[in-house]
Amino acid sequence: MLGFIRSDLAQFTAYTPNPGGDSGKAIKSVDRVDANESPDDLPIELKEKLTWTYQQEIEANRYPDGSHQALKDAIAHYVTESASLETPVTSSQISVGNGSDELIRSLLITTCLRGEGSILVANPTFSMYGILAQTLGIPVVTVERSPDNFEINLDQAQRAIAQSEHPPIRVVFVVHPNSPTGNSLTASELKWLRSLPDHILVVIDEAYFEFSQTSVVKELAQHPNWAILRTFSKAFRLAAHRVGYCIAHPDLIAALEKMRLPYNLPSFSQAAALVALTHRDQLLAAIPPIIAERDKLLATLSEYPGLQVWSSSANFIYIRPRQLKQNSLSQIVQQMKAQGTVIRNTGGGLRITVGSPEENQRTLQRLYQTFEKDSHFGYS
Amino acid sequence: MLGFIRSDLAQFTAYTPNPGGDSGKAIKSVDRVDANESPDDLPIELKEKLTWTYQQEIEANRYPDGSHQALKDAIAHYVTESASLETPVTSSQISVGNGSDELIRSLLITTCLRGEGSILVANPTFSMYGILAQTLGIPVVTVERSPDNFEINLDQAQRAIAQSEHPPIRVVFVVHPNSPTGNSLTASELKWLRSLPDHILVVIDEAYFEFSQTSVVKELAQHPNWAILRTFSKAFRLAAHRVGYCIAHPDLIAALEKMRLPYNLPSFSQAAALVALTHRDQLLAAIPPIIAERDKLLATLSEYPGLQVWSSSANFIYIRPRQLKQNSLSQIVQQMKAQGTVIRNTGGGLRITVGSPEENQRTLQRLYQTFEKDSHFGYS
Repeated sequence: MLGFIRSDLAQFTAYTPNPGGDSGKAIKSVDRVDANESPDDLPIELKEKLTWTYQQEIEANRYPDGSHQALKDAIAHYVTESASLETPVTSSQISVGNGSDELIRSLLITTCLRGEGSILVANPTFSMYGILAQTLGIPVVTVERSPDNFEINLDQAQRAIAQSEHPPIRVVFVVHPNSPTGNSLTASELKWLRSLPDHILVVIDEAYFEFSQTSVVKELAQHPNWAILRTFSKAFRLAAHRVGYCIAHPDLIAALEKMRLPYNLPSFSQAAALVALTHRDQLLAAIPPIIAERDKLLATLSEYPGLQVWSSSANFIYIRPRQLKQNSLSQIVQQMKAQGTVIRNTGGGLRITVGSPEENQRTLQRLYQTFEKDSHFGYS
Repeated sequence: MLGFIRSDLAQFTAYTPNPGGDSGKAIKSVDRVDANESPDDLPIELKEKLTWTYQQEIEANRYPDGSHQALKDAIAHYVTESASLETPVTSSQISVGNGSDELIRSLLITTCLRGEGSILVANPTFSMYGILAQTLGIPVVTVERSPDNFEINLDQAQRAIAQSEHPPIRVVFVVHPNSPTGNSLTASELKWLRSLPDHILVVIDEAYFEFSQTSVVKELAQHPNWAILRTFSKAFRLAAHRVGYCIAHPDLIAALEKMRLPYNLPSFSQAAALVALTHRDQLLAAIPPIIAERDKLLATLSEYPGLQVWSSSANFIYIRPRQLKQNSLSQIVQQMKAQGTVIRNTGGGLRITVGSPEENQRTLQRLYQTFEKDSHFGYS
């Protein structure tokens, strides 16, 4: 190790991105249901609109608009409209990032660095909170979830907050609905989040809001210590463009704006997010069919006796073999991949994105092929 | 201030991005010679090629290639070719960022967090090193430059390294050639950088390499503690797309790759950088005319008796009124802006980008208009 690299980084393991391929090129021969993306690309007329914008309005040689003002205004309008808020959210409550990932990092930098705080997460959950905290040398306190319904163990969480002192817990991260397990925050969990003191930041990641239609945005005005994260990578079909946003108290937003890279968002990404918001009715019309497909997947898989299947409020499902033998999850993933379907092994279970109807049909067939070789699933 | 925000951030001032405007929309009525951008957009045929790629090959709904492999290979080839290296640079020596800004932040995170290090900069220089260090709570030690030729005060720098202990200086940042002052590293400065011990990282920012054709890349193999930064935002005309890269020892690159956001670069930005590299001969043919224009600007401005003018190895020039009265720099900037030319007031002088021939002509006219009102410039 080179002498100038931080002493704590040798053991650190990074996030494993999905397989990718040639830069931006489709790998259309494989069903990629591992990253909770939308199965549909932008409609061709929107891509044409964007390419017109690129050719006519965007100067490649000029730095992007570092204020994001037009995009923040459009997001504020969408947030207000989608929650039917009486008091509109304004752009002073919005910060935009290079995906939610950048906002997670900015939130960590803004709150916990210099030994001032640690974070709390309830596993299994989105791994980036813990990974980004580790890259910054920020301690991660973990608590468990119920193995039955994945509700956070609130007694454990409360004890962890009471007992963590050097440094104290300064941020609690939750996903609503949770990834990889698909469950929305329960009444008890929400009650607990409401009870947290003002000096603890509560980050509620609503990456799957458009699928769940559950949001805490109506309560935001009462909780200056709450921040909501959202993304254009899921329902809005813009994962390639990397745009996420945070809705929070103007003072926190002002701090995030100071922390971020001044030109964090390419001009074309800003244009893409604006086009997606302008055509939101068209894009979000794809959601009910995805939810119907999800429920068909769940209904079929629930008939496998050897499989534990949970309900989901998002565009993915979570399953576990009832008898988990060593390596059985990674074996299933390998066998699925060999048949042409990529799924994700995470948190002691398998997360499968709802794809197109054809992809979902193949997912079921291939799971069947995989499971019928194993007597535990009741097919022998 | 909200209770969960870091106690040291209240006083922090962020980088001021250039004025921007509507997201991605050109402000073509103003000469923007404040951000060292190329005056030319990508040729229309390259923009058409990119829009074809966007429509035919990039799936907006899919995450970008997180490995950047194709782009890293192309960059390694370009670095090898442009320095006529006998031993080729490989992709294991390249990391790609959301602009160099992201790489600067990753370098800081990788080396100095947790109170393990501070950084050294010689002012005036690119302000982002110090600003990003501050956002991370990393101390910034500053030394001076010669007021005559902007060479770093090496005695001061050496003393600062010897005396900084809690935490020690772990990174030295230099720009080659320096911004805003335009001077390349001198033989003495290079000798000093070579003498620094292995446990101090030396970051040599070659953002303007294509203009200066000065690079330390040939020496990199002998210095595992050197890292070179480059960008596509200047000579390659891709400021809107935000792509920078770092060339360094594979162990440092491996650490940077672990630190970065897994999907830090949008698919379209990766595609744009690949297109720019493929057509590098065409794009870089614009450099000699820019250098000729720079030298014309310098020759004309050198005739102003009231003005101090320095030579430049980059695509910008740096000037100072010989008699600096209070507010005179900001007054000049305001008067220039009122006439339609945006320049940058930084480091106690004015930095002016070499624009198109028409822009440069207007820059000279407007500076003349501004200065002739002031007897100090010898026009009364």
